[in-house]
Amino acid sequence: MRTFLDCYTCFLRQALDSACNAGADDALQERIIKKVLLLLAETPITSKPPEISELVQQILRTELNDPDPYLALKQSSTQEALALLPWLREVIQNSPDRLETALQLCAAGNIIDFGAARDFNLPDVIEQVLSADFGIYDLEEIKKGLASANTILFLADNAGETVFDKLLIEQIKKPVLYAVKSSPVLNDATRADAISAGLDQVAAIIETGTAIPGASLEKSTPEFRSLFNSADLIISKGQGNYEMLSENPQPIFFLLKAKCAIIATDLQVPLGSFVIKKGKP
Amino acid sequence: MRTFLDCYTCFLRQALDSACNAGADDALQERIIKKVLLLLAETPITSKPPEISELVQQILRTELNDPDPYLALKQSSTQEALALLPWLREVIQNSPDRLETALQLCAAGNIIDFGAARDFNLPDVIEQVLSADFGIYDLEEIKKGLASANTILFLADNAGETVFDKLLIEQIKKPVLYAVKSSPVLNDATRADAISAGLDQVAAIIETGTAIPGASLEKSTPEFRSLFNSADLIISKGQGNYEMLSENPQPIFFLLKAKCAIIATDLQVPLGSFVIKKGKP
Repeated sequence: MRTFLDCYTCFLRQALDSACNAGADDALQERIIKKVLLLLAETPITSKPPEISELVQQILRTELNDPDPYLALKQSSTQEALALLPWLREVIQNSPDRLETALQLCAAGNIIDFGAARDFNLPDVIEQVLSADFGIYDLEEIKKGLASANTILFLADNAGETVFDKLLIEQIKKPVLYAVKSSPVLNDATRADAISAGLDQVAAIIETGTAIPGASLEKSTPEFRSLFNSADLIISKGQGNYEMLSENPQPIFFLLKAKCAIIATDLQVPLGSFVIKKGKP
Repeated sequence: MRTFLDCYTCFLRQALDSACNAGADDALQERIIKKVLLLLAETPITSKPPEISELVQQILRTELNDPDPYLALKQSSTQEALALLPWLREVIQNSPDRLETALQLCAAGNIIDFGAARDFNLPDVIEQVLSADFGIYDLEEIKKGLASANTILFLADNAGETVFDKLLIEQIKKPVLYAVKSSPVLNDATRADAISAGLDQVAAIIETGTAIPGASLEKSTPEFRSLFNSADLIISKGQGNYEMLSENPQPIFFLLKAKCAIIATDLQVPLGSFVIKKGKP
């Protein structure tokens, strides 16, 4: 997906949220925003949104002098999700179709995103997503794909959401490569964040090779690219990965909540919809 | 009121809306947004929001090669409001307190603002405002002020809204100076816009001396400053005038809808509230 001019207001808001969240004082917030404005003026709009977002977050990390400004939020998100784990497991165990319920919960987990939406009550949203219609619901396709796939690549999104990914991987019952960012960006899960959520117990954790908040094939390592291109099936979580990969011809299934109007329009679903969508091919 | 960093997302959105509204193609929209980003990076945050907004609109007018990009929207807003005039007059005539109803309608008219909020149904909002509680309702103070004032200055806001101002001025039954912007900016009323709405029939139209979308005493003409400082009572419409004058010690009454979260917080009212508020002194 390309970057739209509407995205610029969102980059700015995200930068300001990041600065506020990190406790920056007024002067530092202003310096950060001025630098972000210059960056946005200079960066070609041909970059994809997560690529620009990563440049914005580089400014944040430098100016805040903090390599991981979202660490505390990531940790509390993970703890909050882990506290729900017994209940979530029970929901899955008691459901007539455990894989389907795990898929629904995994999409629901995408609400854990301080980058795009800040206010939510996790149990409420889970109840809602289990009873609600999805905007796109390619259930049979993903079940069929999972049944025949031998190599499955899972593109992680945010810390905390990782717990919901773990529940799905448990139901897939096949070896899964779980790809996290190589270093911190926003609230995206790194290796350490994934391990905190117990993902190492159910998958082999690998890295995307970048800190772009969405898998970039151009900028990733040859190792990641090779794993990506040879996977039988790819599960892609969240908007960032969708923005990077929506046109990619590999067998990808996107699980996400459409939190922004541009992505909702691209997906042709109402804003706020949950989506399980088969990719282009 | 000072400019907050949150305002920057709004300046950007407003610039993009202005460009889209004027039919700019993608390349021109991008050029405009890049210029606005540079402007925002360079402009001191000590400027007030309408002063920055005016600089943004200068870029728009230059790049669009159009001295009045909102002309068609202003004209249709005025026509839409004029079409409601007979009904609005009847509402006032049939009310137990005509001045109060005219004041309420005048505040309600502030929803006509393509700069801050784009979707509204005018008759619906009028019904709503006449039955709703105001966030701040300094009714007795403004009635008392109007009863004793000899010189009344009325600071206009948007075209279309002018029709509601006319209804209030008819009920004030005293000579009123009606101050419009000296040249086009956003959908703010100019002399021509005010005349289209019939304001010349009920008031003496004067100009603020600038195209800043809020009365600036520092940058206005000595003539306007003198009229401002000598007025017994000033009626100030809309957010732009509030942002410029909220700390001014003159006897001002602000009539507006709090359309943005920052102004709502400053006024200590819920977002979206209508307000009739006595100024600081």
